[in-house]
Formats: sequence, C-alpha cells, structure tokens
Amino acid sequence: MRLADYTDYALRVLLYCARHDERLVTVAEIAEQQGLAKNHVMKIVADLAHAGLLETVRGRSGGVRLMRPAREIRIGDVVRLGETDLRLTECFDERSNACKLTPECRLRGVFARALHAFFGVLDAITLAELAGSAPRRSKPSNEPAPA
Amino acid sequence: MRLADYTDYALRVLLYCARHDERLVTVAEIAEQQGLAKNHVMKIVADLAHAGLLETVRGRSGGVRLMRPAREIRIGDVVRLGETDLRLTECFDERSNACKLTPECRLRGVFARALHAFFGVLDAITLAELAGSAPRRSKPSNEPAPA
Repeated sequence: MRLADYTDYALRVLLYCARHDERLVTVAEIAEQQGLAKNHVMKIVADLAHAGLLETVRGRSGGVRLMRPAREIRIGDVVRLGETDLRLTECFDERSNACKLTPECRLRGVFARALHAFFGVLDAITLAELAGSAPRRSKPSNEPAPA
Repeated sequence: MRLADYTDYALRVLLYCARHDERLVTVAEIAEQQGLAKNHVMKIVADLAHAGLLETVRGRSGGVRLMRPAREIRIGDVVRLGETDLRLTECFDERSNACKLTPECRLRGVFARALHAFFGVLDAITLAELAGSAPRRSKPSNEPAPA
C-alpha cells in the first residue's frame, strides 16, 4: 500500500508554493529544488491549475502561485486528486469483481470504513499546517475557549 | 492506493477456511472456488501457516484449517502481513528519501496518523465478523452492560 509518486510530487509542488507564497515560483525552480523532471512538474502544475489549486501567470516574469490561501486547501483533497484508483480490493469494482465470496462478505464495507478514517485524518489538515505556516488545528489553542 | 493482490487473496483464503471450519479444506478446492492459480494459493497457504494463522495437515485426507478461532484473527493483522511496504510517501524511508522539504515538513507524521486510523478500523474487525459467522462487535449488544 503506497501512494502514487504523482500524489507525493503534487503535495511537494503545493508545499513549495505555500512556503514561497509572497512571490511567483517557476516550474524550473520547483523541478530543480526537488530533483524532478521538468516535464513531470509541468504536468502536475497543469493538473493542479485545472483543479483550481494553482494559478499560472504567463510571460517572462510569470510563474505559479496558490489559487487559494494554503489554510483553505485540505490535504485529503490533494490526495484524492492524485489517487484516482481507490479500489483497495477487487470487490470495490463491481464490473470486474470475480470474487466468489462477495454476496455475504463484509470486506468491502470494512475497507470503505477504513478508507474513510484514513481520509478523515487528511481532511483535518490544511496545506498551511503541513507547511509549518499555521498552527495545527488539532493542538490545543492557547486562546481561552469561547464561553 | 490499492492493496496488493496478495493481501486480497490471503483474506479470501482465510475467509474460505472460516466459512468451512467444520472440516479441512484443500488448496485445490480454494484455487478452483476462487479462480486462482493453485501455485499462488499454495504460496499464500504456506505463508499463513508460517504466520500461525493456518494449520496444514498432510496426507491423502489432509488439507488446511484455521489454527485459531476466526473470532481471534484480526483483519488488520492479515493486511499487515500482506502489505510489507507501508511507506506511503518517499519520506517514510529515511535511507532513500530525497525530498528537500523533509526537515520542516509534517507530511510523514500526518500520513502515519492516517495509516493508524486506517488500521484502527481493521483491527476492530475479526475474521469471524467478516465471514458473517459472528455479530459485529461495534454493534450495540443486547445484553445488559456490566454494572
């Protein structure tokens, strides 16, 4: 059980943009900093722009930046974007499922609940929290609780 | 994000044994019933026996059966057995990690928590519950709570 490299790299691209949100960053810069192929980063940037997470600015002094504040981007949504195949076991896909145990087996429901718990953790974390630019929401706040 | 086919098949082998726990079942029978290669099932059965989950009985009327009652086998443990690679992202493996964001990034901790939540669900379910031969523990019991 691993995430796709694509998901890993998409998170890195977004993290890099979050860390440098005071300016536009370039594809070449991200590629060099992360040791990734420039074409690979270009594809990821295009997908993230299509998904409304990155804004691309054309021209000589162009580049990319986050479309929304990092605190409004949930890690779970980025992972869902990269992980297009979340069929944990064969029975997740009714069309191709050949398992003979299916009718009475509760496996699919159990794995669906486990996946829900997995994304529950990721949905509670924002890009800002991951990048270290915002306090973790799960930590107790120093501010007094509302009465 | 998918589980290895191996994990899927290991669960099926155990489920089949749980459903027929009144007798020994054969590798040929499981392979035929599940449409899997006999060699593949033999390998899985050997691994499950090595892990203390299946007992193999040699001889003409031999076969395999669960080593322990199905209610004592947690689904999480079977999945851990099959999923030997749980490094969700590159940074899970410190030796090969090349990501430049690592020192300040909280990604690994977040994914470790998400994985913990995933297995939390699977560890709460036993093979007996999955096979339909026992009530789910998460359902409220009809018995009165202890005082």
